[in-house]
Amino acid sequence: MDKTLTASLARLPVSFGDIEAAAALLAGSVKRTICDRSRTLSDITGADIWLKFENLQFTATFKERGALNRLSALSAEERRRGVIAASAGNHAQGVAYHAARLFIPATIFVPVGTPTVKIENTRRHGTDVIEGGATLEEATALAIEHGRQQHLTFIHPYDDPLIIAGQGTTALEMLGAVPDLDILIVPIGGGGLISGMAIAARTLKPGIEIIGVQAALCPSMYNLIKAQQLPMRGDTLAEGISVKAPGRITSEIVRALVDDIVLVSEQRIEQAVSLLITIEKTVTEGAGAAGLAAVLADEARFAGRKVGMVLSGGNIDTHLLSSVLTRQLAREGRLTQLRFDIADRPGQLGTVVAILGKMGANIVEVSHQRIFTDLPAKAVLLEVVIETRDRAHLDATIAALKAANIDISGH
Amino acid sequence: MDKTLTASLARLPVSFGDIEAAAALLAGSVKRTICDRSRTLSDITGADIWLKFENLQFTATFKERGALNRLSALSAEERRRGVIAASAGNHAQGVAYHAARLFIPATIFVPVGTPTVKIENTRRHGTDVIEGGATLEEATALAIEHGRQQHLTFIHPYDDPLIIAGQGTTALEMLGAVPDLDILIVPIGGGGLISGMAIAARTLKPGIEIIGVQAALCPSMYNLIKAQQLPMRGDTLAEGISVKAPGRITSEIVRALVDDIVLVSEQRIEQAVSLLITIEKTVTEGAGAAGLAAVLADEARFAGRKVGMVLSGGNIDTHLLSSVLTRQLAREGRLTQLRFDIADRPGQLGTVVAILGKMGANIVEVSHQRIFTDLPAKAVLLEVVIETRDRAHLDATIAALKAANIDISGH
Repeated sequence: MDKTLTASLARLPVSFGDIEAAAALLAGSVKRTICDRSRTLSDITGADIWLKFENLQFTATFKERGALNRLSALSAEERRRGVIAASAGNHAQGVAYHAARLFIPATIFVPVGTPTVKIENTRRHGTDVIEGGATLEEATALAIEHGRQQHLTFIHPYDDPLIIAGQGTTALEMLGAVPDLDILIVPIGGGGLISGMAIAARTLKPGIEIIGVQAALCPSMYNLIKAQQLPMRGDTLAEGISVKAPGRITSEIVRALVDDIVLVSEQRIEQAVSLLITIEKTVTEGAGAAGLAAVLADEARFAGRKVGMVLSGGNIDTHLLSSVLTRQLAREGRLTQLRFDIADRPGQLGTVVAILGKMGANIVEVSHQRIFTDLPAKAVLLEVVIETRDRAHLDATIAALKAANIDISGH
Repeated sequence: MDKTLTASLARLPVSFGDIEAAAALLAGSVKRTICDRSRTLSDITGADIWLKFENLQFTATFKERGALNRLSALSAEERRRGVIAASAGNHAQGVAYHAARLFIPATIFVPVGTPTVKIENTRRHGTDVIEGGATLEEATALAIEHGRQQHLTFIHPYDDPLIIAGQGTTALEMLGAVPDLDILIVPIGGGGLISGMAIAARTLKPGIEIIGVQAALCPSMYNLIKAQQLPMRGDTLAEGISVKAPGRITSEIVRALVDDIVLVSEQRIEQAVSLLITIEKTVTEGAGAAGLAAVLADEARFAGRKVGMVLSGGNIDTHLLSSVLTRQLAREGRLTQLRFDIADRPGQLGTVVAILGKMGANIVEVSHQRIFTDLPAKAVLLEVVIETRDRAHLDATIAALKAANIDISGH
């Protein structure tokens, strides 16, 4: 290891020894998830893709690692009093589950309006869930205040050396399984996961490249590290990494050890979630698919290199997942909405349906209406959603409609 | 082992030794998939649920086991000439992939109109795919005839001792991992998987209970074994087990060794696919979820017992998967279509929207029309699809609408 790297590792608030200690502590209580090569994703992208399935943890997220490591460091008195955290998502699950395992009372603040499913998932560990604040930031402020009054230890989701050390065990396992990885791609929200992983990976393999990924809609750590002012437009599919304020400790570590941070579009994230479903048969949330999205967005950069990526979580809302899959089919030309301006006389709808049938296009939805259109009163708007085998089949179907003089106003 | 069981095992055309030989042959070429306990599914059902993840095979199906075992038994001359099979689905994948690995030329007949995605998935192994016949039965007849003319060996999808022995290795692995399973629940199409598994499991653990599952829409083996005439209504989500004619060899083995066959409804299959997505974060096709569907349909029967089930495949069409997830949300009261007859004057739509907003119900779709209704001309039909947190939230939302004198005509 060169002296500069040794010196910068030594200056950081988390050491490789802390991560090894966390690994020893976690053994048997947190899953050592598999780290497997994806042959098909490697074929598709041209990179050599290795996936770490943290979405298969009991609570479907790596957050358990940091949570258990942090909880285990509490004194007997602190355990008796209990802990408090704020999160509507994965951190809540990690804290709630391991606090219950250790018989530590836990209180979690969630923003008002958090889906009942998420509240119930947290509550069923025996956790006290309190709704408060309109945003996660407000819920966090309330949680800290409540914790102070009730003498509960606040468990930060990322900006805590013990949390960071816990998350770092992910890299120990990945490099233990696949020592010759060239690159790690790690999603960044607050930065806890990449910070711990960077310390572990750089110690074990100093030359490894470490790349962080953020959603383009929420480039908080990117802006901080690259001194940019890209807008924070929020509401990304990757809500697990939609964190407004990077940590103080984590940003110091990212600055010292992370080679680059890349931003991925929503479309790439959706494509990655969809590919992981169709090819790997595994469910990831947006943040969990961000690493694959980064490779899809810049295949030349990763071609031929051995890339390890963390499928960091699998907690995606079912309705959202269903929409992501449908939208991806639309992008692939397999599900298409056609709009026709057809004269309002008998037979026109029948002609369209007959041609679609002859072409083997499956009709999924039809709507046929005279109002809400800016067409002349004698015209009728027909909207048909069709399912085709692929883009070539779609193109042939559209050509057949046009050949029959059907006027397609949009698709 | 009691004498009756020993005698009936000895009479069968596949022996435990054949399965052990298949296991030795498959080692290193077919994945030894994990067999893991599902804590949450166990909590939900009251049974002790163990899942064998055959959906994580390279081609996402256990069919590779039988295919490789069968292909490996070909003579040098047979290999040179090549093989032929008929299947639009998992058998095609298994044969195509392992034939390519062994440099054996393969031809697969698929019914006309098979989705391009499936054809491409088979073709990319270098297989010659020929479309022929309107149904799988017709494609099979064509394949057999073509094979006879071209001197290609026909690879049967299930009614072949080597295929059965290959599929049986699934049970060796399950009982190797979890020797004290009380029950195996295995999906039945042609019966290859359950036949091989029953021979292996009954030899290793004579007292184990073996239960087959079929879709209620396609009860072919059920009818044969139970001497019933239940109608074959076809078109089940579990297309992987939608086989009209059970095998001759497989039905002999099922009769000798399988304790019971149960039928599951489409609704249960959809629920099981959905639960495996939301809880296990794993994608199964309908047939792959049939075992869980059987437990959900009769929890009392399995309560407290150690149940092993095979997630036999993960090849489900993306659009179908998306619909299954949406329909399950509707059943859970989380996605609901409301219909209102509202007077056609300004403000009515606004009132409905305001109440939904106040109640925190998310509006997913609105349609508002005057035609295609059987209401008086002055009335308007408003259809709104809303997303609610759960059934209680839905009920509260409907109550609020009724309290404001909004006339809900249906949901």
